[in-house]
Amino acid sequence: MDYQQIISDIYRQILPYAKEGKQADYIPELAKVNPDQFGMCIQTIEGDVAAIESADTRFSIQSISKVFALAMCLSIKGDSLWKRVGKEPSGTAFNSLVQLEVEHGIPRNPFINAGAIVMADILLSELDNAEEEFLGFVRAVAGNDTIDYNPAVAISERENGYLNASIANLLKYHHSIENDIESVLHFYFMMCSVEMSCRELSGAFLAFANHHREFDYAGVKLTSSQVKRMNAIMQTCGFYDEAGEFSYLVGLPGKSGVGGGIVAIYPLQYSVAVWSPRLNSKGNSVMGIKALELLTSETKESIF
Amino acid sequence: MDYQQIISDIYRQILPYAKEGKQADYIPELAKVNPDQFGMCIQTIEGDVAAIESADTRFSIQSISKVFALAMCLSIKGDSLWKRVGKEPSGTAFNSLVQLEVEHGIPRNPFINAGAIVMADILLSELDNAEEEFLGFVRAVAGNDTIDYNPAVAISERENGYLNASIANLLKYHHSIENDIESVLHFYFMMCSVEMSCRELSGAFLAFANHHREFDYAGVKLTSSQVKRMNAIMQTCGFYDEAGEFSYLVGLPGKSGVGGGIVAIYPLQYSVAVWSPRLNSKGNSVMGIKALELLTSETKESIF
Amino acid sequence: MDYQQIISDIYRQILPYAKEGKQADYIPELAKVNPDQFGMCIQTIEGDVAAIESADTRFSIQSISKVFALAMCLSIKGDSLWKRVGKEPSGTAFNSLVQLEVEHGIPRNPFINAGAIVMADILLSELDNAEEEFLGFVRAVAGNDTIDYNPAVAISERENGYLNASIANLLKYHHSIENDIESVLHFYFMMCSVEMSCRELSGAFLAFANHHREFDYAGVKLTSSQVKRMNAIMQTCGFYDEAGEFSYLVGLPGKSGVGGGIVAIYPLQYSVAVWSPRLNSKGNSVMGIKALELLTSETKESIF
Amino acid sequence: MDYQQIISDIYRQILPYAKEGKQADYIPELAKVNPDQFGMCIQTIEGDVAAIESADTRFSIQSISKVFALAMCLSIKGDSLWKRVGKEPSGTAFNSLVQLEVEHGIPRNPFINAGAIVMADILLSELDNAEEEFLGFVRAVAGNDTIDYNPAVAISERENGYLNASIANLLKYHHSIENDIESVLHFYFMMCSVEMSCRELSGAFLAFANHHREFDYAGVKLTSSQVKRMNAIMQTCGFYDEAGEFSYLVGLPGKSGVGGGIVAIYPLQYSVAVWSPRLNSKGNSVMGIKALELLTSETKESIF
Repeated sequence: MDYQQIISDIYRQILPYAKEGKQADYIPELAKVNPDQFGMCIQTIEGDVAAIESADTRFSIQSISKVFALAMCLSIKGDSLWKRVGKEPSGTAFNSLVQLEVEHGIPRNPFINAGAIVMADILLSELDNAEEEFLGFVRAVAGNDTIDYNPAVAISERENGYLNASIANLLKYHHSIENDIESVLHFYFMMCSVEMSCRELSGAFLAFANHHREFDYAGVKLTSSQVKRMNAIMQTCGFYDEAGEFSYLVGLPGKSGVGGGIVAIYPLQYSVAVWSPRLNSKGNSVMGIKALELLTSETKESIF
Repeated sequence: MDYQQIISDIYRQILPYAKEGKQADYIPELAKVNPDQFGMCIQTIEGDVAAIESADTRFSIQSISKVFALAMCLSIKGDSLWKRVGKEPSGTAFNSLVQLEVEHGIPRNPFINAGAIVMADILLSELDNAEEEFLGFVRAVAGNDTIDYNPAVAISERENGYLNASIANLLKYHHSIENDIESVLHFYFMMCSVEMSCRELSGAFLAFANHHREFDYAGVKLTSSQVKRMNAIMQTCGFYDEAGEFSYLVGLPGKSGVGGGIVAIYPLQYSVAVWSPRLNSKGNSVMGIKALELLTSETKESIF
Repeated sequence: MDYQQIISDIYRQILPYAKEGKQADYIPELAKVNPDQFGMCIQTIEGDVAAIESADTRFSIQSISKVFALAMCLSIKGDSLWKRVGKEPSGTAFNSLVQLEVEHGIPRNPFINAGAIVMADILLSELDNAEEEFLGFVRAVAGNDTIDYNPAVAISERENGYLNASIANLLKYHHSIENDIESVLHFYFMMCSVEMSCRELSGAFLAFANHHREFDYAGVKLTSSQVKRMNAIMQTCGFYDEAGEFSYLVGLPGKSGVGGGIVAIYPLQYSVAVWSPRLNSKGNSVMGIKALELLTSETKESIF
Repeated sequence: MDYQQIISDIYRQILPYAKEGKQADYIPELAKVNPDQFGMCIQTIEGDVAAIESADTRFSIQSISKVFALAMCLSIKGDSLWKRVGKEPSGTAFNSLVQLEVEHGIPRNPFINAGAIVMADILLSELDNAEEEFLGFVRAVAGNDTIDYNPAVAISERENGYLNASIANLLKYHHSIENDIESVLHFYFMMCSVEMSCRELSGAFLAFANHHREFDYAGVKLTSSQVKRMNAIMQTCGFYDEAGEFSYLVGLPGKSGVGGGIVAIYPLQYSVAVWSPRLNSKGNSVMGIKALELLTSETKESIF
């Protein structure tokens, strides 16, 4: 397929939505991003790459970092990880976040905040220098040594992160995190602050798409079966309250972030990253979801 | 692949689990089934069929009927169906069933009981003779005119169906069902009471697996895109509180029933039905889930 | 004190609220009551009676009947009643009614609908003719043999009583009611349909105010201690989500009904009934609550 | 009445319960108290005082301090206080604490932890030196200048106070507290750490019992009506999940603390404090509740 042509067509079709939605503004660093940007990059396992617009502009990957954290935790802990965190979708949030995220101290899945906070705790306990090793893994899997944290974003998020602090304290109360709360939250927000471009993200996620290839990056090793199972979790839990809607409309496993990025993969075919800061009410990029919906509609490629 | 060989191997491997779990016994009709039965049938889109043990014994399909109801509702209502029922997974049941199933009268997805009760209401409103037309569709898609309801099961379920009656009354209170409660519950339980064998179920679900083929059975028509989207819903919502676990272990969309049956599909490859009455604590067949986990592990075939 | 003067003054002061609120209209029988009515009657244990306006007009006592049901259940079952129903306040309803009312089949207190449905079940099981004996007790305690059910109201409520039917089915599912659901709901709605005037209600509740006098009406016997404990339950649970507010503003135990009636007692002093159909958002009579607030403010009489 | 005789009789009757229950041990300071202690002191508005056993031993008043905080907040803010905190009972905790305590940032009442944390925030904002003024008020109302904080208890509670920190962060997220979280929690735990004896507590609460006397202590002024309304809140909200049970069994407004103390008042008659460290499963002193139940049973004095 001519993916360059396809994503150019898609871009034209989604332009009417360019002003829909509202970018995240709960911290100044995210609020000052120009919301009128769009980037998209698709990479196939044969090595084709198609990219348009701001595909090389880095942005805050935010919750997409939870996929990298999960890869590291699964590599280290294997299936014993699931004693600390569940793998069931969290369901529509019908009350408030805190209680629903934690039942008797076990977060429902690794992609809600409580789950990622527990993963941050695990990595802090298991690694000599969690911050350095996490970045090392992201750089290795993305194949780019200039990828980095944005500490200003991390600090700003911590300062306003009352909801995550409430969750972390509740986890600590339930003996679900071992390290001190401040260290865990600091590392959690650092992971969220990593900045990558669509090209870098789609490159990194190609490792999840192509599970026939050995997964071994900076010491993080996963079997083919483990990669496939990570993809399964992205399918059921990757989009907050919109996991069902995304699965229905797009039909690919993926993960979104509040910075406006979305990554999805078509196993053994391609990975795709899209970015646009304006979000819908569920916290997912408006243009990003539209673009991916069109991609699978037009190419008639979905996992179903 | 030699599926006959594969499923024979699988059967041998899961025999140690033959006495694990407990069959549903909340109504006498289900309790009197011999629990020590196992059947499995796989059918490929090329026309290969492999079957072992009690693959031709009919059993109560129970919640698997919700897939047939969804096909009919989608065919009739199109995307306007989603005004009446959501498509998000329901999350781990952490309180009790009634409240969680219904938020402001909108059930979370079509595969929880509240969702299926709303679908029963829709079919009663839209069809001249819902009971007859539902059976006609099931017979047509399965290619077998002897498939039938078991009214004794339906009546017995209604007599003990206090939880479903509680849900139906709550839906009525929210103006979410139009017809009278008894009619809706009667039809709902009739659909659940349909009896089919593994061979018949895998035959019927081949229509969902092979979405390249026209879907048109007894007047129920779906586009290729609609079939794929139904598969997406099976993936995220098909296994009650175990949807994430099943997705993780098996990696195929499917649907289970409390009668011990499970159907799953590998899009554009095959459909598979397995049946064994003993259930795990989540209400899914113990041997059934083991068998499907081995099937995708050994064939290295999953959608991820 | 000159209660006649006091309640005349109160009436003048609350007239500005005469058009505030909205009467219950979920069934035609309640909707067709003239909303612009007000009655009040106070009776002291010394035998003084003061009454104004429509104090002799009968209205639907609705949930006030739950106090009479509780008196009968306590008389029959003693403290073993509390195995079937709790006595804790229900808290602000922050989700929806059904689930919160029933935890593992035990309603939180006798004055929420679930609790009263369980009491209806108990009376049906324990009495030869519950309907007749309930009416006999109410007539005896009120000292008026013409008090009666309004079956038209009861039938109309049953026909629209989906929420109560949902609750009853959930209770049955939890094995918390013994009799068949329709019988229980019919009796429950019959009790609610009793019609009494303010004069009759204050007369009946004098028996709860004056616990130094023997409580023995039509065979319903309570000790002084039991009467005081019933008063305690009225204090903590008598006003739905407004129990704390009423306790704070009025400082007397009491019970309200959706028909616009409120009864309160000042132990060993007086009982008072007030009625006006317009309700606030919590389902309590606007003028009724204002009148009682003024009564205890002006007389400086509250239990605290 | 001869209260000295009455409480001596009571003590003899409750001795069989002396080993029931378990003292609070979540912080070392509370765990090292000798659990086998009992004290009781009753003081009438005529000036009679009866005391037995360890009535002069000081203990950690813990949540009883919330009554003092409420008196200060009501004195400062008047009825505008109720914009920041509700006054409805919290209902049986059927999930977990955090979510239930805070709805949209408004704690349900001043006596749950979230409510007291908001009151701590108010006092910090309104007073020049909240810590000093709080202690000044407690000393004044108790008439004893040696009453003091136990900072070791406060610090130990803060170090293990993950649940309260979770609540405070959730409140901050909802903009329900103005001051920084650490300051609020520090002051909250300091208030809890105050140590008083039964004699001192019953002395202090006499001011609430005798609302005919002017309430003015160290600048904290309340009207008679405000004092009565505080008593109403103690009645409906003073005993966590056991408010209804306590109201039913004892029939007096009061407040308990996890240190094993309970204070109750009989308006215009007496105040009573009882202390024994062993707690029931709801966190209230076993012997304390028994003693108060007997007191109102034997004296036939309750507010109902």
